Amino acid sequence: MTSGSRARDHGDPGDAPTIPPPLREPVNSARPSAAEEARTIAASMNSATLATLTAEGDPWASFVTYGLLDGAPVLCVSNLAEHGRNLAADPRASLAIVAPATESDPLANARITIAGHVERPTGAEQAAARDAHLTAVEAAKYYIDYSDFTLWVLRVARVRWVGGYGRMESTSGADYSAAQPDPVSPQAAGAIAHLNADHADALAAMARELGGYPDTTTASCTGVDRYGLDLRVMTERGMAYTRIGFPSVLTSADELRSATVELTCRARGK
Amino acid sequence: MTSGSRARDHGDPGDAPTIPPPLREPVNSARPSAAEEARTIAASMNSATLATLTAEGDPWASFVTYGLLDGAPVLCVSNLAEHGRNLAADPRASLAIVAPATESDPLANARITIAGHVERPTGAEQAAARDAHLTAVEAAKYYIDYSDFTLWVLRVARVRWVGGYGRMESTSGADYSAAQPDPVSPQAAGAIAHLNADHADALAAMARELGGYPDTTTASCTGVDRYGLDLRVMTERGMAYTRIGFPSVLTSADELRSATVELTCRARGK
Repeated sequence: MTSGSRARDHGDPGDAPTIPPPLREPVNSARPSAAEEARTIAASMNSATLATLTAEGDPWASFVTYGLLDGAPVLCVSNLAEHGRNLAADPRASLAIVAPATESDPLANARITIAGHVERPTGAEQAAARDAHLTAVEAAKYYIDYSDFTLWVLRVARVRWVGGYGRMESTSGADYSAAQPDPVSPQAAGAIAHLNADHADALAAMARELGGYPDTTTASCTGVDRYGLDLRVMTERGMAYTRIGFPSVLTSADELRSATVELTCRARGK
Repeated sequence: MTSGSRARDHGDPGDAPTIPPPLREPVNSARPSAAEEARTIAASMNSATLATLTAEGDPWASFVTYGLLDGAPVLCVSNLAEHGRNLAADPRASLAIVAPATESDPLANARITIAGHVERPTGAEQAAARDAHLTAVEAAKYYIDYSDFTLWVLRVARVRWVGGYGRMESTSGADYSAAQPDPVSPQAAGAIAHLNADHADALAAMARELGGYPDTTTASCTGVDRYGLDLRVMTERGMAYTRIGFPSVLTSADELRSATVELTCRARGK
């Protein structure tokens, strides 16, 4: 499930430099869907901020830890704490998860909001939810079985993904649940460093032949996921970003090397 | 404003090791108040999670940046974004701020929840709020004057501070507003490293003579603020934590060296 382009519905920085458009259409600009981006962000963390409703119906933001059960956040909170009392009285809840920072400008970093309602899992789901929380939050072993702690599964009704400035999209709970977190991007840091250190010529060739920027002078890789590479491109018209999709979707980081070799061959017409 | 001890109202880890009590009362266990702890955490960050109410009255958690105007968070959000629409329709809001992580267990780290309602600042406060936001969030210069962005000042009605396991306290908006962020702790990392590397004997003497643990074998410093030192103490009865208050409250990190020298002299009976 991919979406090739996204509406920039707001948030472009004001007097930031103008970005030169591609001179021809990129060959394959496949990207993760909003649901996939959201699942990847959720899988990258084990703490988040929960929004609940107080007895007066006021919003209440609080720090929580979570695990994931098929993408559904599993919370373990004390009934004595304000958020625990809130959930017991009104199951409506929202969770904001912020991906680890990669940019110094906070709003350039990726984050999601999940909204829905919590339920206490029962039967087999209770055991699975307990395992999911403990897998993500090791220290929970000290309190998860306390009588004043409750496991809650957040049933996801809708999701808002913000990838940074101008990259944002809403998705349904159903699409979020059906999507899979990225198998490549969490392990891609080493590959990105290697591409930039040792294969800058190949990246520039990709940008010229496949990325729509034939006037590329230099290119560097800023991200990798199952669908392809994000490139930052320098041209005499200014700096731009483009996307180089893989010939087929990767299912594991082990496939990254052969996929980038194939892209290099295509870019060089071999 | 200090509180010497705090109720452990919940959250002690279950089968964690028992902590040996002091053998005599610490001489001076002065600590920051909950309001001061909260102000210090708020001053340490420029991003947080906002909880607002949707048109249906559901909670909505979202990532935001903020500056501080006399401790009141100043937000700058787009009216096109969901949280911006929510605030315009219902001013009730809550903000969760998580201090930079110092422990691998997420729940051991400090955080606060602020609750109240937002207002659009006017007149002189508008200019001050704009400056406060720009000082904290440099990139806001690109969008703060866009017509679809609104500055909101969060009027603080109440605050919940959680310092980690078993350290938590609520405080009023008035006490929060009157308190000052710590002038020492944000610059104390170097001093802590120096104390632990070069003055372990002095720390152990403080723990024995001033900290209530005459059976201390070794001690290390885990934190410093305007009121004193946090020490981790090893005894043959196990590991404990104690507090060594300064003879007078520091107003600047520049006073840290002379204050710790004085504590060392007192501990050694000089």
